[in-house]
Amino acid sequence: MPKWRCPRCGFEEDIYSRYHWRCPRCGAPLNLLYNISGKIIESKNVWTRYGGFLPFEPERYRGEGFTPLVAEKTGPHKLLFKLEYLNPGGSFKDRGTALAVYYGFKMGFKKCVVDTSGNTGISVALYSKLYGLDSIIIMPREAPEGKKRVVRQLGGLIIETESEPGASEVIYDYINKPGSYYVAHLWSPIYIVSYATIAYEVYEDFGVPDYVIVPVGSGGLLLGVVYGFEKLREQGLIDKTPKVIAVQGYSAQPVYIALHGESSPGESSTLADGILVSNPPRIAEIASAVKRANGEVVLVGNSEIARAYRTLWELGFTVEPTSATVYAAYEKISGRVPENSNILLVLTGSGLKTLYQHA
Amino acid sequence: MPKWRCPRCGFEEDIYSRYHWRCPRCGAPLNLLYNISGKIIESKNVWTRYGGFLPFEPERYRGEGFTPLVAEKTGPHKLLFKLEYLNPGGSFKDRGTALAVYYGFKMGFKKCVVDTSGNTGISVALYSKLYGLDSIIIMPREAPEGKKRVVRQLGGLIIETESEPGASEVIYDYINKPGSYYVAHLWSPIYIVSYATIAYEVYEDFGVPDYVIVPVGSGGLLLGVVYGFEKLREQGLIDKTPKVIAVQGYSAQPVYIALHGESSPGESSTLADGILVSNPPRIAEIASAVKRANGEVVLVGNSEIARAYRTLWELGFTVEPTSATVYAAYEKISGRVPENSNILLVLTGSGLKTLYQHA
Repeated sequence: MPKWRCPRCGFEEDIYSRYHWRCPRCGAPLNLLYNISGKIIESKNVWTRYGGFLPFEPERYRGEGFTPLVAEKTGPHKLLFKLEYLNPGGSFKDRGTALAVYYGFKMGFKKCVVDTSGNTGISVALYSKLYGLDSIIIMPREAPEGKKRVVRQLGGLIIETESEPGASEVIYDYINKPGSYYVAHLWSPIYIVSYATIAYEVYEDFGVPDYVIVPVGSGGLLLGVVYGFEKLREQGLIDKTPKVIAVQGYSAQPVYIALHGESSPGESSTLADGILVSNPPRIAEIASAVKRANGEVVLVGNSEIARAYRTLWELGFTVEPTSATVYAAYEKISGRVPENSNILLVLTGSGLKTLYQHA
Repeated sequence: MPKWRCPRCGFEEDIYSRYHWRCPRCGAPLNLLYNISGKIIESKNVWTRYGGFLPFEPERYRGEGFTPLVAEKTGPHKLLFKLEYLNPGGSFKDRGTALAVYYGFKMGFKKCVVDTSGNTGISVALYSKLYGLDSIIIMPREAPEGKKRVVRQLGGLIIETESEPGASEVIYDYINKPGSYYVAHLWSPIYIVSYATIAYEVYEDFGVPDYVIVPVGSGGLLLGVVYGFEKLREQGLIDKTPKVIAVQGYSAQPVYIALHGESSPGESSTLADGILVSNPPRIAEIASAVKRANGEVVLVGNSEIARAYRTLWELGFTVEPTSATVYAAYEKISGRVPENSNILLVLTGSGLKTLYQHA
C-alpha cells in the first residue's frame, strides 16, 4: 500500500485512509512511499507500461504521455526536444493530473479545486469531467485569456483572483467544503511521480542525456525528472544521471536565491507566466535536487524568451512562451557545454491556445 | 523509383524527373506507383517504421504520427478515438505535409504555395520553414482567425481570397512562378500514401476495426485510410478491411451526390469549415473507395455538429468543430451498428487554435 510520508516530521499514513495535501502534523509537503518493481510492460498506455514505477494506475486514459522526442543537431550539440505540449490538454501537467484526479475520484470526492496560472487548470478541468467530477479553477485575472477559454469549454468553473499569490489564499474558502478535493499541484507528490514517466520515456527512446533543461515554477517537473532518472539508476537500468539545468525568470527566482543566498538582477520575465512562482512549497527539496544532479539555475528575461520563442516556432515547435525559456537558457550556456553533449529540452506547453495574445 | 501514374490516360514518369500536381497530359489527379516491401521496422519515427509502405522517407521529423489511440466503451460499441489533433501542427495534415514539403525541397523548389481552409496552411508553413523554404498560404477570408495567426507565427505569408472556390483560382498566379511548388493537397497522392500510416498504426495498436468514421473534405484522409488497410491486406498482414463511413456536411456533399445522384436537404454545416469542399478533384475515386469499403456517406448539420463538439470536449477531446462531425455521424448511425462493433473515429484537428471563436 502506498503511504504519505513527511520527510520533516516522519508522519506516515496509507494514502487510501485519508487525503492530505500537506503534512497534517507539521505542514510540510508530503512524499509518497511505495514499492517499485522496476518492471516495464509492453504497452502504449504510459500508466500500464510504467506501472512498476508508480504508486497506482488510473482507470481512464486520454492519450497522455508518450510524447515525441525530436532530435536536432545544432552546432556542437545534439538537442533532444521532448514535445510535452502534445499532451491531450496541451501541457505536461496532464501526466500529473491524470493520476491526481483519479486518486480524488477513488477517494469519493465530488469536486476538484485547484489554483493555477493556467495549464494545470485546463488539465484539471479535462480529467475532472472525465471522471464525472466538477472542477473549480482559481486563476489570476491576468492569466492568458486563451487558457481561460479552454478551461471553460472543458466545463471548469473559473474563479478569478487579483494576483498569483492571492490565488493561493482564496483557495482556503473552497478546499474546506465537504466533497472538495484540493488538487494542490504545487505540493502534490502524485504530480512528481507522474512526471518521472518523462525520464522513463527518454530512457527508452534515447538513453540518458548529458543535460536536462527544464523550466521551474512549482518545481514538480524538475523533481519528477530527477526522481525518474534516480529510480532508473536504483533499478540498475542506467549507471549515470543527467546534469539538470533549472530555468527561472528574473521576475521569480526562488531556486536561484535558495542556492546563491541572493537574487540576481535582470530584465522582467513576465512573458513566462507559467513559472511566475515566487514561493514554491518544495523550495528546499528543489534546491537539493539541483545540487544532487550537479546542476545549476539559469535565469532568463523577456527579450531572451521572446527570441527563443520565435526560434522554436521557426523550428516547428508550436510552444507557449514559458516553454521557450529552456531554449533561451540553452543559448546562454551553450558556449560552456562540452562538444557532442546530448541535451534534453522539455517543451512544456502548447502555444496554440495563447497565440492571439502574442501575435 | 517511384513514378507518377495517371489512372485515366496511363501517363507515367519518375517522380524525381519532374513534379506534376496533376496529369500533364489529361489533367486527372495522379497516383503514385512504387514498390511496397511491407516490412515494419522497430522505430518511434513513423517514417522509418513504415518506410516499407512509403515511396520515400523525409529527412526531418517533427513528432508527426504515432498519435494516441483511446478506447471508450459507449453503450453497445467500443469506440476507438485516434487523436490526430495531437500532431505537431495540430492536425492529421502534418503527416502528408511532412512528406510533400520534403519532396518539394528535394526537387529544388524555393517556395511552397497552397490553397487551404486552414489546417493545411499551418502544416505547410511549419514544414516549409523546417526545410528553409518560404510559404504562401492562400486562405478564404472567412477561415478561422486562430488558424491564420498560427500560420503567420510559423512564418507563412497569407493571401486572403473571397471564398473557398476563389482560393483555388487565385492560386494559378502563384504556382506558375519559377521556384514555386504547388503543394496541391486536394490532388496530391503524396498526402494519400502518408495518411495510410494512420491505418498502419491502428493495425499495430489494435487490429482491424469493424468501422472507420472519417470526415471528408478533399477525401485524402478517406482514400489514405482505405489504401492503408488494403495494403495491409495485400501484404497478408490482415484478412479483412473495415467498413468506411464518409462524413460530410449538408452544405457540401459531393460524395453523397456522386453515390446517390442527388443531394439530400438538411441544415447548414458551416461549423465544419474543414470539410466545406464542393468539388474535390478525386471525387470519382472517393466514391469508388466508399463502395469498395462497403461504406456509406452520413451527412450532418450545425446543430448535430455543435452537440457532438460539446460531447467530445466533455470526454476530454479538445478538437475543432470539423472533427466533431465524426461523432455526430456515429450518433446518427449507432442504432443500426451491430452490438460489440469496434469503431474507429479519426479526430482530425485541434480546437485549441480556434476556441475563442466558439467560446
